[in-house]
Amino acid sequence: MKKAELFDQIEKKASFLCVGLDTVMHRIPKHLLSEKDPIFEFNKQIIDATIDFAVAYKPNIAFYEAEGVKGWESLQKTIEYLPKNVFTIADAKRGDIGNTSERYAKAFFDLMNFDSITVSPYMGSDSVKPFLAFEGKWVILLAVTSNEGGMDFQYLDISGQKLYKKVIRTSAAWGSDENMMYVVGATHPEILKEVRKTVPDHFLLIPGIGAQGGDLKAVCESGLNKNCGLLVNSSRGIIYADGSKNFAKEASLQAEKIQKQMAETLQSI
Amino acid sequence: MKKAELFDQIEKKASFLCVGLDTVMHRIPKHLLSEKDPIFEFNKQIIDATIDFAVAYKPNIAFYEAEGVKGWESLQKTIEYLPKNVFTIADAKRGDIGNTSERYAKAFFDLMNFDSITVSPYMGSDSVKPFLAFEGKWVILLAVTSNEGGMDFQYLDISGQKLYKKVIRTSAAWGSDENMMYVVGATHPEILKEVRKTVPDHFLLIPGIGAQGGDLKAVCESGLNKNCGLLVNSSRGIIYADGSKNFAKEASLQAEKIQKQMAETLQSI
Repeated sequence: MKKAELFDQIEKKASFLCVGLDTVMHRIPKHLLSEKDPIFEFNKQIIDATIDFAVAYKPNIAFYEAEGVKGWESLQKTIEYLPKNVFTIADAKRGDIGNTSERYAKAFFDLMNFDSITVSPYMGSDSVKPFLAFEGKWVILLAVTSNEGGMDFQYLDISGQKLYKKVIRTSAAWGSDENMMYVVGATHPEILKEVRKTVPDHFLLIPGIGAQGGDLKAVCESGLNKNCGLLVNSSRGIIYADGSKNFAKEASLQAEKIQKQMAETLQSI
Repeated sequence: MKKAELFDQIEKKASFLCVGLDTVMHRIPKHLLSEKDPIFEFNKQIIDATIDFAVAYKPNIAFYEAEGVKGWESLQKTIEYLPKNVFTIADAKRGDIGNTSERYAKAFFDLMNFDSITVSPYMGSDSVKPFLAFEGKWVILLAVTSNEGGMDFQYLDISGQKLYKKVIRTSAAWGSDENMMYVVGATHPEILKEVRKTVPDHFLLIPGIGAQGGDLKAVCESGLNKNCGLLVNSSRGIIYADGSKNFAKEASLQAEKIQKQMAETLQSI
């Protein structure tokens, strides 16, 4: 998906919500466990319930790998089920030497047709570039993560600038705002403001709203640009809003609630 | 596998060779392509041919993911086929927030029973610790990688020390030399010497011998400790030494050649 198409979807739905499909067997409502593929059935109902309010979906690959071959099948079915006009993110945090990153790109871009993949920056340019070689596909590079351990290395001082900023500045030259985004945790809006100054035109993927404590209003004030420039993710706060037969309806209500806030914010750009 | 058991295997086989199972369909000898599962059949024959000369096996997960569900099945069969007395490494370079790293740990330690997994340090302590919670399992943390892009961030100066050294010093406190190893590329023996000073007792996983240009003798001089302390990986140089029906025999010869060099070196410790 091209940047203009993504923005077009954002305008149409008045939303920049990304729904995180972190689907784990023990949190799926009991009545679905007798289904042939409970993970896919859960995802399918979550997608149906939220599709009017979300422009992006982000399965976290760990949750599927933890179920082995069956999990991989559920993931493939989920990505095939998602309509073509939503932006799909393989939250995989991959990255390896060139010939190996090529294989990951094949897995997520060719085989499963994801629009984008999250990538870790530690191994540098040649671990990222094989993903950028795919026309119309995106790398979403980890910059600032929302977890506590993010403090261990990302904020280290490199001749007066933090490591995360050095990562963004260096990597911005590997691609463009048409094929690269950055992950910036929602838990530090002041840092988001810094990042926005560094890459004014790039889309940013913001995890950490909801369960991780991030605040949507603060994120918007710090991160919006003239083309929106944000995809804000909520996983547990939507998909596990209710653990009963009512789960899809409640997920829909939660997604709509966020979308309404987003619609208001979008009027200001 | 415990550290003492690993060292025991190293002494028994007079080898610290790790065979990298980077198996890709288009490099498998033609006569195997009619097999039901060519990737597993190839791995099986490579394992049989090299088992006397290697103490560890390292499938790079990207190569299996690139084949989708079928690749995942080949990987599971491969790990089940490997005897219990070899050290198994899931070269996956994973790492995510705590509840997600837990899922990856479930995939690779519970479901597939790997002894260890490679992990990227960028997200810090809570992305690594869920793996360390598994008794008898290991994290192999990326420190210095052998690719050119490794220079982009790993060598940045942090108040007088390089980032890779800061990563090692900080992370060494998360576990011990009984459950953590580090990846240190073979292409920079002088750096290996630095790393050995920083973590005198940890095992180091050394990729980059062979196809990537690293030199075994220089690696040994810089990295050996009194418990060997090294696992040296060769992938393409062994498994693709010959592309014909003779591939397993040639892989065996290449592995034996490296093992003989290793046996000599081990006499000096």
